Amino acid sequence: MEHGFDFGAILLALAAALVGAKVFGELAERMGQPAVLGELLVGVLLGPSVLGLVPLGDSIRELAEIGVVLLLFEVGLETNLEDLVRVGAPALAVALAGMLLPFAGGYAVTRALGYDTLVATFVGASLTATSIGITARVLSELGVLATREGQIILGAAVADDVLGLVILAVVSKVAGGGQVAAGLVVKSTALSIGFLVLAIAAGIPLGRRLVGVVGKASVRGVLGAMSVAFALIVAWAAMKADSAPIVGAFAAGMALARTNRRHEIDTALKPVVDIFAPVFFVYVGAEVNVRLLNPAAVDNRPALLLGLLLATVGFLGKFAAGFCAWGKVRRAFIGAGMVPRGEVGLIFASVGLATHALPERVFVAVLVAVFATTFVAPPLLKMLRPRPA
Amino acid sequence: MEHGFDFGAILLALAAALVGAKVFGELAERMGQPAVLGELLVGVLLGPSVLGLVPLGDSIRELAEIGVVLLLFEVGLETNLEDLVRVGAPALAVALAGMLLPFAGGYAVTRALGYDTLVATFVGASLTATSIGITARVLSELGVLATREGQIILGAAVADDVLGLVILAVVSKVAGGGQVAAGLVVKSTALSIGFLVLAIAAGIPLGRRLVGVVGKASVRGVLGAMSVAFALIVAWAAMKADSAPIVGAFAAGMALARTNRRHEIDTALKPVVDIFAPVFFVYVGAEVNVRLLNPAAVDNRPALLLGLLLATVGFLGKFAAGFCAWGKVRRAFIGAGMVPRGEVGLIFASVGLATHALPERVFVAVLVAVFATTFVAPPLLKMLRPRPA
Repeated sequence: MEHGFDFGAILLALAAALVGAKVFGELAERMGQPAVLGELLVGVLLGPSVLGLVPLGDSIRELAEIGVVLLLFEVGLETNLEDLVRVGAPALAVALAGMLLPFAGGYAVTRALGYDTLVATFVGASLTATSIGITARVLSELGVLATREGQIILGAAVADDVLGLVILAVVSKVAGGGQVAAGLVVKSTALSIGFLVLAIAAGIPLGRRLVGVVGKASVRGVLGAMSVAFALIVAWAAMKADSAPIVGAFAAGMALARTNRRHEIDTALKPVVDIFAPVFFVYVGAEVNVRLLNPAAVDNRPALLLGLLLATVGFLGKFAAGFCAWGKVRRAFIGAGMVPRGEVGLIFASVGLATHALPERVFVAVLVAVFATTFVAPPLLKMLRPRPA
Repeated sequence: MEHGFDFGAILLALAAALVGAKVFGELAERMGQPAVLGELLVGVLLGPSVLGLVPLGDSIRELAEIGVVLLLFEVGLETNLEDLVRVGAPALAVALAGMLLPFAGGYAVTRALGYDTLVATFVGASLTATSIGITARVLSELGVLATREGQIILGAAVADDVLGLVILAVVSKVAGGGQVAAGLVVKSTALSIGFLVLAIAAGIPLGRRLVGVVGKASVRGVLGAMSVAFALIVAWAAMKADSAPIVGAFAAGMALARTNRRHEIDTALKPVVDIFAPVFFVYVGAEVNVRLLNPAAVDNRPALLLGLLLATVGFLGKFAAGFCAWGKVRRAFIGAGMVPRGEVGLIFASVGLATHALPERVFVAVLVAVFATTFVAPPLLKMLRPRPA
């Protein structure tokens, strides 16, 4: 059935990702760790730098990104907008502190090692964004999405993602040699935040209308398919508003959470998420090149050392940010929830490399910091978790 | 989250395919037609020759093919191996007649119009294979998969697909100027049939073992994900054995149908199929270029005329083949079930064009015949359907 594209390779990679994710997820759980840690680790093993069963490239990446979009849609479906708004102020405080502290730390370390301002700015910026994918998944696994801590982390991670993409737009422009007008920053920020508000405000009545219309249909699987289509369209609109597709999918989920068929949508969605979300985490793991992490190779050491320093300031900055939350909450848990950088840090690093803003050694160091914070977060969250709500 | 590949376009195309499929599927049902007819028609509308919302290309095609693989896996899960074996002889008779008659008709028509033997052979071969995807989907929609007629159609369509790919290998070799040794044909046929037998024979104990191991796991969604992985691996193995991935997925489904968790697997699979299978049918529709079908354009007329002739012999040959079945069955329904050519005919045509075995005008005529038989089958099956079992 194939000419020109290798469907066999796609089938095999998807199968390997699924089997690996479930086997290692199970092993992780038996060792008292979140399943997502096993998925990330098996991704390293299946990726091109070890076994090569899950290649990096558009075909698997497409499935991975659809997976994380559907995951955030599901998380949104399980999120109560009022609860999220109620923790808005502490969440924003955590988000802002969680961007400023790692930025300052990353900037200072890079400058201290003799790199110029542009490199230091890019490194600092790379450490600002929390991975909403990792965080949401671990919170969901621990059953603490609905706790006050869970809501603060989620709110702060969404704010981080929205603002992180504004920062990316700005530093990319600087790296490309362009000037950054204050007006552009304000416009880009306003667009991203405005989109989120609009998506929820318009999404709620639209979602109700959708559910009403769909209720009259008789074709098989129409509610699940139309809900997914709704999420995909809002995710697409988010991209058009310079925001992230996962932010759009999350907003779509929150909108449909307010319809009377929320539970049916969730039931139809779960099996799809179970298959596609692990592909995302395996893919993130596959992006780790273990060869660069070998300390026995002398060439690797400078980047590893810088990476460890960046991982440390990146970790401490986000962890400390958790203590900016107030109310009766476990602040250390919130801090831990902000730690993973995951996919967003990778995007910063790869834009930095592509625009020549980051020398390759610094690029590798940023990757080390991104992966170290991503892998340390799930066990830390498990250790510090509050009682499920 | 994207650099290098356009994730926004993928989100939008997938959303358009889902909304289109469900809206047109619903309209088709209200007009007394199978939903799949609506999905095919909306595909024409969304495809590049009309609205251009669903582009042809690897990114959507990948999702479409995963969709049809999962659909055939589901159909396999709902198929009883003993029932299929019981109708083996009439199914094989229908399959063989359904290959010989359209081949002879297509060959004769093409030769009569003055084309050479190679062209005529390729045209004849293009008309041999039944689209198991369309047929299985309509049978499932009509609730007649488990009837004797349904089983004969399914068995014959699988046999057709297995033998069709052997024919494709042979005619491609001829078109490429190569010699075809009888040994090669025998080997290729034996390999394809041997694979199917082996996949089922080995798949049954392996499937039971898999279900046993998975039963002890505690991670979320493990049964569904591992079953899908099993189907993908067998589909991949089918491709390696020169057979079609959908044949492998169907065999995997029949193997898992014999485990004690068949219903749970089916429940986990349905929402995934509901989302991805329609993408396949929309994609098939999107491959129709309406510009070539406009009879007002004088340039189109020769190809349209040849296409109508081929559609007629292609239709009559397959329909007549249904009357080769015996036993207390509705033969016209079986004949109608063999009519749609769908994806397999398209592959023949595109290989023919790529190897220059088919002049472009004849290529277009084959496409016309493929689409005419594909679109006429769902309403015809609906009209002739036996009572559900």
